[in-house]
Amino acid sequence: MTLTIAICQTEGCFADPDAAISLLDATARAASQRGAALLVLPELFCTGYNLGADRARSLAMSREDARFTKIRAIARAHGIALCLGFPEIAAGGVANSAALIDAAGEILLTYRKIHLFGALDRAMFAVRGGGFPVVAWRGFTVGLAICYDIEFPETARALALAGADLILVPTALMPPYDVVADHVIPARAYENQVFIAYANHCGSEDGLAYIGKSSICGPDGAILAKAAAGPELILAMLDPAHQARVRARDALLADRRPEFYRSLTA
Amino acid sequence: MTLTIAICQTEGCFADPDAAISLLDATARAASQRGAALLVLPELFCTGYNLGADRARSLAMSREDARFTKIRAIARAHGIALCLGFPEIAAGGVANSAALIDAAGEILLTYRKIHLFGALDRAMFAVRGGGFPVVAWRGFTVGLAICYDIEFPETARALALAGADLILVPTALMPPYDVVADHVIPARAYENQVFIAYANHCGSEDGLAYIGKSSICGPDGAILAKAAAGPELILAMLDPAHQARVRARDALLADRRPEFYRSLTA
Repeated sequence: MTLTIAICQTEGCFADPDAAISLLDATARAASQRGAALLVLPELFCTGYNLGADRARSLAMSREDARFTKIRAIARAHGIALCLGFPEIAAGGVANSAALIDAAGEILLTYRKIHLFGALDRAMFAVRGGGFPVVAWRGFTVGLAICYDIEFPETARALALAGADLILVPTALMPPYDVVADHVIPARAYENQVFIAYANHCGSEDGLAYIGKSSICGPDGAILAKAAAGPELILAMLDPAHQARVRARDALLADRRPEFYRSLTA
Repeated sequence: MTLTIAICQTEGCFADPDAAISLLDATARAASQRGAALLVLPELFCTGYNLGADRARSLAMSREDARFTKIRAIARAHGIALCLGFPEIAAGGVANSAALIDAAGEILLTYRKIHLFGALDRAMFAVRGGGFPVVAWRGFTVGLAICYDIEFPETARALALAGADLILVPTALMPPYDVVADHVIPARAYENQVFIAYANHCGSEDGLAYIGKSSICGPDGAILAKAAAGPELILAMLDPAHQARVRARDALLADRRPEFYRSLTA
């Protein structure tokens, strides 16, 4: 069965989680009214990305936090699944996390970023993920990745080999990395024959600019929807029958020759 | 030191190796006159790609073949390195191979395609490659891949991990696979911080059409040169100092987390 999903590309509400929750409520309503079954938001949507160590720590929350309860209630109220990033209180420090919450408000999956990006991420996040989980949702097998994670082809490949047919990627992509939004995302979709939703920030936070260019790509690498540089709600329809045809046409997963890939895990 | 390299995107000389060698001679002269130190030609340039089993067998050659001697003499005569594809006589049948020949006419590397594409390749080629070799050439570490090989991210990754900073890809890309030429090639260059030369056929052979769109990409994913749909000689300058700056800016190879990639070699 086809499903429509949405991405909210937004300037967000820097270092103001309560304002972010209000924005989430309004955006979830709008996306639901336009027929979306899922709304994907940027990396660390709940707080903004460019926090620095102190704010990342003070704004971090657990999944039991009252704010998280409000987020789950928003999903329930508008009957829409949500995927969004938040700084997570974890044993040993703060993690750069994203959660997938279904339309009943249940947390289906929490993913912690595995590949930390440069000094920015490393200043804020002491805890990294321990694997690439996937979960069943509305007929899809869904995996998550966060920003820099998806630049490593191993991330999407591991998710696809675990059965993912839809990968959700909250991100905070800056200049001069347009090549990631313009080329890497459709390449990941094509090479793994998966749908990808890549949800970026726009605007800037404390001098750090983001390029927008969020996109939803199909399993043949087609760009189904793509945002420009500013705030935008983009939508695309995911058609599992089309995905099945693409996978029947080319055997990109079955034609792999793992015996020659050993250096990748060395 | 910077080096200029060229790609000859051509309709080739279907099933006529002697005509292909004449075309090679003229093209190598032209590329050399325009300052290129290396000329890359499409998959199975010596014979054309869409041969079928019988012609692939009857036109296959070894590296000791008199035609190969002529090809090496062309490199020497014009003082230009050559990378080109040919059906290779191998123990057990025919391989889809490509050779890198230096400007002195020495064969530096022969690579056999590892990932066979659908019924087309499988009808022609019983022998596949046994690894991803690299070789030193003019200050670069060079690896080869052939067409479908490069659609698997593991191919370019294995080459990069073996030290490749320049990957040469003879190809025969058809409709509707524009996404490979448009997006996968710049993504491979970016994610591995390598130069890539992707040399395609244009025109058609026996009803099989090729889309052109050959390109040379830089280690930041920039498209340095790209052909349109027809015959064309494209050139680009490779700057190792720029590659070093890109690799110093982002640690895309060092930031890998191989402990989470085990499923890729299972």
